[in-house]
Amino acid sequence: MVGIGDDAAVIRGEKRAHQVLTTDALVESVHFDRRFSTPADIGYKALAVNVSDVAAMGATPHVALLSLMLPADTPIDDVDGLLDGLFEMARAVNVTLVGGNITRSPGPLIVDVTLTGWVHPRKMLTRSAGRPGDALYVSGSIGGAAAGLSWLQAHGHRPNDNDDDVPGDPILADCVRRHVRPEPQARLGMVVGRNRAASACMDLSDGLADAVRQLAQASGTGAKLDLSALPVHPGATAWFASIGVDAVARSLEGGDDYELLMAVPGRTKGRFRNASRLARGVEVTRIGELTGTPELTIVSDGGGRPLPDGFVHF
Amino acid sequence: MVGIGDDAAVIRGEKRAHQVLTTDALVESVHFDRRFSTPADIGYKALAVNVSDVAAMGATPHVALLSLMLPADTPIDDVDGLLDGLFEMARAVNVTLVGGNITRSPGPLIVDVTLTGWVHPRKMLTRSAGRPGDALYVSGSIGGAAAGLSWLQAHGHRPNDNDDDVPGDPILADCVRRHVRPEPQARLGMVVGRNRAASACMDLSDGLADAVRQLAQASGTGAKLDLSALPVHPGATAWFASIGVDAVARSLEGGDDYELLMAVPGRTKGRFRNASRLARGVEVTRIGELTGTPELTIVSDGGGRPLPDGFVHF
Repeated sequence: MVGIGDDAAVIRGEKRAHQVLTTDALVESVHFDRRFSTPADIGYKALAVNVSDVAAMGATPHVALLSLMLPADTPIDDVDGLLDGLFEMARAVNVTLVGGNITRSPGPLIVDVTLTGWVHPRKMLTRSAGRPGDALYVSGSIGGAAAGLSWLQAHGHRPNDNDDDVPGDPILADCVRRHVRPEPQARLGMVVGRNRAASACMDLSDGLADAVRQLAQASGTGAKLDLSALPVHPGATAWFASIGVDAVARSLEGGDDYELLMAVPGRTKGRFRNASRLARGVEVTRIGELTGTPELTIVSDGGGRPLPDGFVHF
Repeated sequence: MVGIGDDAAVIRGEKRAHQVLTTDALVESVHFDRRFSTPADIGYKALAVNVSDVAAMGATPHVALLSLMLPADTPIDDVDGLLDGLFEMARAVNVTLVGGNITRSPGPLIVDVTLTGWVHPRKMLTRSAGRPGDALYVSGSIGGAAAGLSWLQAHGHRPNDNDDDVPGDPILADCVRRHVRPEPQARLGMVVGRNRAASACMDLSDGLADAVRQLAQASGTGAKLDLSALPVHPGATAWFASIGVDAVARSLEGGDDYELLMAVPGRTKGRFRNASRLARGVEVTRIGELTGTPELTIVSDGGGRPLPDGFVHF
């Protein structure tokens, strides 16, 4: 029903439901570094990034398939750890691992997961149904994962007791956690879909700027963001300031924030408030709106300027 | 409905059908060598090996997801070629590519495909319902792909006009083709399932000896094979003889034969003949039977001996 170009593919499935299918791989030295991520972190995140795509469709995750490519010298303990992490995420979102494949890799460790989900056809959240005037909301915060990764790369190791900035600082520790163990917004996507509270939705896997661009493009609209409204993670603000990087720009471009971007029409604003209340503990922030003209701008006290390009994996 | 341990996973799907899901990856320098396989060959085979798994469940292939991991220096023409090959196989079996993911690889080229299919619950072919006395049949021939790969490795290049053995020899050319572009038995699996002509079925991706061992183990039986009945590919007989290798042993162990092994009870023998007639042009050969004792033996004029171990990828 929905093919390449949305967060996930949808095909006819159960009698009154569509099945959502998505696949996403974590590749060593592209998506993770074994100095920073434990095997359990890698397994956890490999499923989490797929859960995020299914949530962004308003669907309920269902079954997963795992394709594991292992260097010949991988210790069996690492494989166990990886599966432990994957099953921890699976339990959290009620997903069953139904199949998979293990093969040797001549180089990197690769964890490729395919995930399915079910969604009622009329409650599906695509990217393309946003309309000019719809408010744009983002869940949680942005930039935290990018700051965590930046901290890890600057230090060359996971936080330990010898670091004077982390783990003493819970805010920076949270940034590191957001990079190694992102929490997908599974519940928020589901309830926003069920309540039909959003016209369009997608996840931020490649950063907020990229998500706004893609949602606006798919909807045939422009977008205007309010710089001062962006929920930049306080750890990102602090860390990027300490290394002389513009925290807001970096948070806009930073990937790995598995939050949701949602377009909300005026008439469903009340339903949207209810939905975000149902997704316990998840903040949502109004960051701007979709516009009738095709421009993508970000507005601050100094006036409007074009939205920066998003982070591109490839 | 069926999880890890069978050819593919099965979950509840359409009103009166089960959905089959399978995933299989081709990894450069583990499963293919770019000296021997063109990008189109690789794309074709990446889908074909998954079609073989779906066929082995008696299911009809439906939609595929593609996860592509590309070295940074991959020419765009190679990506196009790979997709052309994949779509050629997709058209042949009426599969739609509904989603996927492209990422960078720090080393090998990897093509990971997930494929779904539909099957009527009562027409599904698992590995575990074989019974002592069921005849064992194999489709097509064995050893051809192993011989083709062995030829390629001995020569270090694809067949060309300067080779005096291939392409002048259509039998050896067919062996090379069976390695680089295997033809899954999509139609045979489907009609054998629909006719309920077999009690158990699996594909030969890891060789006939391995398949017999796994099917017998899952069914709680033993198996007895008749050495003289094995349909060894004539190219395998010729090539392995020319390099002083036991062709029958090598063909039993050789992976990459995407044929089907089927257990056929006496009472459905007529249905099985009809089914194999419906799968136009596919030969099936009776190679032995399942037994009540747990041994796995291969019988020749010189008596019985244990079945050799199958080829193991990892």
